[in-house]
Amino acid sequence: MSSRSTPLGEFDLIERFFKTGADALRTNVDQGITLGIGDDCALLKRPTNEEIAITSDMLVEGRHFFADADPALLARKALAVNLSDLAAMGAKPLGFTLAIALPALDEAWLEAFSKGLFAIAKEHSCPLIGGDTTAGPLTISITAFGSIPVGKAIRRSGAKVGDDIWVSGMVGDARLTLAALRHEINLSSEDLQQIEHRMHQPTPRVELGVYLRDAASAALDVSDGLLGDLRHILKQSKVDAQIQLDQLPKSSVLKKQESSIQNLFAACGGDDYELCFTAPSSQQEKIQGISKSLNLPLTLIGKILPKKDGQARVYLLDASGALLSDSQAAPFLNSFDHFA
Amino acid sequence: MSSRSTPLGEFDLIERFFKTGADALRTNVDQGITLGIGDDCALLKRPTNEEIAITSDMLVEGRHFFADADPALLARKALAVNLSDLAAMGAKPLGFTLAIALPALDEAWLEAFSKGLFAIAKEHSCPLIGGDTTAGPLTISITAFGSIPVGKAIRRSGAKVGDDIWVSGMVGDARLTLAALRHEINLSSEDLQQIEHRMHQPTPRVELGVYLRDAASAALDVSDGLLGDLRHILKQSKVDAQIQLDQLPKSSVLKKQESSIQNLFAACGGDDYELCFTAPSSQQEKIQGISKSLNLPLTLIGKILPKKDGQARVYLLDASGALLSDSQAAPFLNSFDHFA
Repeated sequence: MSSRSTPLGEFDLIERFFKTGADALRTNVDQGITLGIGDDCALLKRPTNEEIAITSDMLVEGRHFFADADPALLARKALAVNLSDLAAMGAKPLGFTLAIALPALDEAWLEAFSKGLFAIAKEHSCPLIGGDTTAGPLTISITAFGSIPVGKAIRRSGAKVGDDIWVSGMVGDARLTLAALRHEINLSSEDLQQIEHRMHQPTPRVELGVYLRDAASAALDVSDGLLGDLRHILKQSKVDAQIQLDQLPKSSVLKKQESSIQNLFAACGGDDYELCFTAPSSQQEKIQGISKSLNLPLTLIGKILPKKDGQARVYLLDASGALLSDSQAAPFLNSFDHFA
Repeated sequence: MSSRSTPLGEFDLIERFFKTGADALRTNVDQGITLGIGDDCALLKRPTNEEIAITSDMLVEGRHFFADADPALLARKALAVNLSDLAAMGAKPLGFTLAIALPALDEAWLEAFSKGLFAIAKEHSCPLIGGDTTAGPLTISITAFGSIPVGKAIRRSGAKVGDDIWVSGMVGDARLTLAALRHEINLSSEDLQQIEHRMHQPTPRVELGVYLRDAASAALDVSDGLLGDLRHILKQSKVDAQIQLDQLPKSSVLKKQESSIQNLFAACGGDDYELCFTAPSSQQEKIQGISKSLNLPLTLIGKILPKKDGQARVYLLDASGALLSDSQAAPFLNSFDHFA
């Protein structure tokens, strides 16, 4: 938490845009932050019957967002993707640090960015407690902290043979938005308007994560595409899975696309930030109750199967329940690779 | 903690270079890391009588290091600057997360980087517990965690009028190395060799920080130049200070430079990562004892004075104890600004 500074330079900027907002937020929350921004470290104190969940995500210009991205939405998303990781463990947000590299001191940009940041921070009672600012290519690195009763964290390794596989919300709209922005697919402006918030303003499923502590056997958040992410659960739980492609929850806009695009975007499109989780069938009623309480669709999309071999296998079924042929399944097997 | 991946791409890389080293280290330490790399979050569990210190620092290519920097030294430094922040609070390292943007998948670079990283992590029993990898301009963002008994953290706000001001080790050599590498100053290769580790491999004063819990009234680590950093203590403690320039601890190599350069580099050169701290005069004997135990020079360089006005004032004294004139003091008043 260094702050290379002159009186009228960087340090003032940090004070003005970040510390003030952080202090304002801290007065509204009491979650064990005994010292916030302004010292060498922040200090956090939690009871012994809790574990602290810790996650870090970095967003880079040109890779995760366009250079002209709305700074307020960008700030929201940078925190949202970290809150989504907390949600996937069942953790309740406690606070976060922000390390940011900025190409220039653009006050209007910083004001919009910090407003967006503190808005989502307030929605989730998750104060900014420290960080670092430097000059450099625009890069946003957030580390977020959450609390969870000891032993209640939902790990990726807990899926059991016979468990149901669920996904929250809708999947594929962020990918469809990207395709429209890249002019790969034509969408009417009404349709685009209806779904683009799914790419620019993902909703971290924080409340759902807390409810799932007592229902799910494994969970993760879908950031890189449902099937690719599901494989992390399969690998760590040492199981396989079958997924009914036509069961994937899709928006009305996505449903207007041809069927192959629908399934591909829903199954493999990134940036959904929904939770994919497994649970014993005995939990179906409870899960439907959670869905009702949160007014959030939770959809049963498949089953956990015994492991066949060293691979983490996902068997894809069509609407009739028949297994897709290898050539039909091939397009679904490639997930996103940052370096590809 | 996302991990966009294909089986042979990024995820394998993370496993190979980071998870393996992290797992190897975790078997040697038991500090409440109940879950490490590989899930949505890491989990940390600590006793109620402790606070957790949290700090984030980001290093950017071209700003904090040269493009051809030795990856092992770079990794060491990236963790060292965070450990230095923990030290400045008196915290004992618990673990860290690493978010890194890489321009390419260069295996040799990654191997050297991860070796350097795990070497310093092991020296300080500070395991890697999570993080993120992405493509992008080389940027290293670390968040480190430390433990400290409740109420024992050394804050910047604790300096009192009459306290002594101390600094550990030597100051100015990192700045002198930079001047030599930039050909602003000519150094013999022997002299350069003797001091360049001070720029490339700063030593975080972790043990000193723990000892100072019971001696210091305020502390911070000197990353941006002694005088500029000291002002953060003055501002937060609402006091002024006097510093005896000729008392600043300098290496024999720095002492070969002309006197104005000596004092300027020692007082304002960045990247020292020494601890500057204040303590009541009653602690002098104890502090000298700590210096002896650690075999580390601790030098009394000034005094805390009553606050005169709204500024955080540092009065500079020459060897005779006389106040420097305004024009003599002017070169010392500008600290480093990332955006200048």
